[in-house]
Amino acid sequence: MQLRLGSIVKELGGELRGNPERLVDGLAPLESATPSQLSFLANPKYAQQLAASRAGCVIVAESMRDQAVARGDCIVAAEPYLYFARVTQLWKRALDGASAPGVHPSAVVDPDAVIDPTARIGPLCIVERGARIGAGTELKGRVSIGENCVVGERCILHPGVVIGADGFGFAPDGQGAWEKIEQLGAVRIGNDVEIGANTCIDRGALGDTVLEDGVKLDNLIQIAHNVRIGKHTAMAGCAAVAGSATIGAYCTIGGRAGILGHLQIVDHVHISATSLVTRSILKPGHYTGVFPIDDNAAWEKNAAALKQLHKLRERIKALERGND
Amino acid sequence: MQLRLGSIVKELGGELRGNPERLVDGLAPLESATPSQLSFLANPKYAQQLAASRAGCVIVAESMRDQAVARGDCIVAAEPYLYFARVTQLWKRALDGASAPGVHPSAVVDPDAVIDPTARIGPLCIVERGARIGAGTELKGRVSIGENCVVGERCILHPGVVIGADGFGFAPDGQGAWEKIEQLGAVRIGNDVEIGANTCIDRGALGDTVLEDGVKLDNLIQIAHNVRIGKHTAMAGCAAVAGSATIGAYCTIGGRAGILGHLQIVDHVHISATSLVTRSILKPGHYTGVFPIDDNAAWEKNAAALKQLHKLRERIKALERGND
Amino acid sequence: MQLRLGSIVKELGGELRGNPERLVDGLAPLESATPSQLSFLANPKYAQQLAASRAGCVIVAESMRDQAVARGDCIVAAEPYLYFARVTQLWKRALDGASAPGVHPSAVVDPDAVIDPTARIGPLCIVERGARIGAGTELKGRVSIGENCVVGERCILHPGVVIGADGFGFAPDGQGAWEKIEQLGAVRIGNDVEIGANTCIDRGALGDTVLEDGVKLDNLIQIAHNVRIGKHTAMAGCAAVAGSATIGAYCTIGGRAGILGHLQIVDHVHISATSLVTRSILKPGHYTGVFPIDDNAAWEKNAAALKQLHKLRERIKALERGND
Repeated sequence: MQLRLGSIVKELGGELRGNPERLVDGLAPLESATPSQLSFLANPKYAQQLAASRAGCVIVAESMRDQAVARGDCIVAAEPYLYFARVTQLWKRALDGASAPGVHPSAVVDPDAVIDPTARIGPLCIVERGARIGAGTELKGRVSIGENCVVGERCILHPGVVIGADGFGFAPDGQGAWEKIEQLGAVRIGNDVEIGANTCIDRGALGDTVLEDGVKLDNLIQIAHNVRIGKHTAMAGCAAVAGSATIGAYCTIGGRAGILGHLQIVDHVHISATSLVTRSILKPGHYTGVFPIDDNAAWEKNAAALKQLHKLRERIKALERGND
Repeated sequence: MQLRLGSIVKELGGELRGNPERLVDGLAPLESATPSQLSFLANPKYAQQLAASRAGCVIVAESMRDQAVARGDCIVAAEPYLYFARVTQLWKRALDGASAPGVHPSAVVDPDAVIDPTARIGPLCIVERGARIGAGTELKGRVSIGENCVVGERCILHPGVVIGADGFGFAPDGQGAWEKIEQLGAVRIGNDVEIGANTCIDRGALGDTVLEDGVKLDNLIQIAHNVRIGKHTAMAGCAAVAGSATIGAYCTIGGRAGILGHLQIVDHVHISATSLVTRSILKPGHYTGVFPIDDNAAWEKNAAALKQLHKLRERIKALERGND
Repeated sequence: MQLRLGSIVKELGGELRGNPERLVDGLAPLESATPSQLSFLANPKYAQQLAASRAGCVIVAESMRDQAVARGDCIVAAEPYLYFARVTQLWKRALDGASAPGVHPSAVVDPDAVIDPTARIGPLCIVERGARIGAGTELKGRVSIGENCVVGERCILHPGVVIGADGFGFAPDGQGAWEKIEQLGAVRIGNDVEIGANTCIDRGALGDTVLEDGVKLDNLIQIAHNVRIGKHTAMAGCAAVAGSATIGAYCTIGGRAGILGHLQIVDHVHISATSLVTRSILKPGHYTGVFPIDDNAAWEKNAAALKQLHKLRERIKALERGND
């Protein structure tokens, strides 16, 4: 598969400095690109790699134009990383053609589910009664959509995703056992949402669990009942959100991060990987709580001291009093 | 769908103060319930919401009777939250009717598996040779039950659950590679167990992995080979238990918590979310080990100091000696 | 099912001290083995259990020969644990016979996938266009292999595994939304790799995600795009590796451990359970970063002090200056 530089620029805009007839047969990072490949420089800290790159053409920002032209062919674009993303889409379409809509014959779709005719339901999917799948949405293979759950338009759900399993709700029965609280809500997913492999989004207990437009979830994420995630928030792999937490828009939640139940997180909050959010976060910003890794022997000494930390604080206080 | 207050009380007991002919068409929390909905007050700390609630009827404890009656219709019950749980069950049955037992035609069930005729095996499930599924148990879609594994009565297994994959057992071969230890045990699950979406319970290496009656597991949980979990223990999402750990009865394990292998945890132990249990816990109680979250700049300073903590302790000791 | 001691030694080597005609009908740990079972002593710290064991025969190291012979029948082997592993394999083969190769009729295999005739594709698997499955490899039920992904020889993939879902790649579009970066690479898995239930390995963005020969992954692990894992590295349940991280050979990664993106970890590195690797590790060794668990009240005091730790350090400095 080959694309002409001229046709890329015709499709995506940007200014081509170089030969529009040049063909590229792949995309690659600066350091490994060959003369028949297209590359990009998104982060100025890699500018030194530009001159040395063997790439046939490089996508660069306005500010790098002169350096890029001195090296060879380039496409000048306002946002090189975004431009690169759009080239990957162009590439994918050229490779695959449009993937045909429709329901794979091995999928199990309830007659009372509503599937938009432009949606694609992959092999071995399950779509239950009352569920609705919007236009242009694709369920890859082995995806489950539970009763009455709604998935918007242009969404992508990867293999193994489970939408609308029961939330984890039980009342103590007074004898030490648990009585099930039936989960009577559903899941509502907006448009342009992508959900990674084996991620689970539980149905609400009474109201619904909600993902707003443009939310992006990585693999193996747990979203509990009645969580609400604001638009364009992105969450990395293995994150977990407990019941009834509300997360704002434009947040990023790092991999393996956790959010306890019933908390509120406002817009534009960034949580580092692995951190556990234990209280509401009402101010935009970047938050972290991770034990720093160390060689095991050093960790053991510090961890032992940590278990005495409040006593150490008392000893410091005592020393300060003694010095008075 | 509507239920008469009179018929709810007839079914579930409790004392109705109000009009038995009143119809409710939904369940909702106090703050959002409409005059046609039923609500509940389980936690006295929300008592102030009672007077302001527009709910058509509220389930309350004996102690709240007078305040509730002053507001409007109510059902007085010994345990309002448990009563509410049972109303959700009533509601679910009224909505769905009884879900029909039987094996979905798309499921792959080995002829040497034994399925109780009152069990329900959902679409695209796999039940292997020698497995047994008890009365009233429901496997939702896309559940795998491995060879010789046993699931008791009235269990619910949500989509993507894997029972009886091989435990993670390998012996070093002396040349840096790993030799597989075949996992010859199975999984035995008691009655009234619920297992969340995409949770995995591995078969034992020699003996079996065991979940006793009434255990409740949330989504994406990992239970390794030869673990034993005591009755009515509940575990929240993304928890993980390593091989041969024994967990008592009536425990609660928070989301993302971990338990190392070969440990013992006695009955009535509560582990906070995200904490890692690194030694046996022989005393009932509440245990925690989580790095407190902070804004990232403060975290960086504290984390750096933490890596020097044992040296700080030495410096405090030196100061104390100096003061002697 | 019964095996003769003589036939075990004939098959696997080792020196039998005892009756070759003795039959064993199972394998069990020393403390629970019955006179008809075979056991093993792999760790010298359990040597005291040897004399008391009722096992019909015990596999022991050279150094334990005399003690073992004094007790009863034994097999002397250079590496008792490795020998035991091989006995489990013998046992499994005797129990099951050879599992038949071939594609289960319920699997969905693209006509342009290449399946070795000695491979076994279990029920309800999906193998997409251009994928290749090597000789002797077994996909248990409900495994997904994405387009153009390659699985080597003699691999075992457990239920729910997803190979080749899209990596989590998005470019900010300048208006707060995310633009998809199509993931144009694939996944390449070497020989003798085992992958646990519901584990996900994403395809690369441009190049491929690579697992070298002999890698062993437990359940519910997340391997992001363009990760590379060196040969014979083993990872326990719920571990997660972010994009473009490179992990060496002969490493062990504990359960729930995390590795941030773009890091390098050299050969022979061991990461403790739950620890987060936040910088490259260029020296073999054992690394840990875990908040020590404690009873909740003690944890609360220490966690509160930890949030002031850098101030405590300043106070120690001040005291030290005061003492000068």
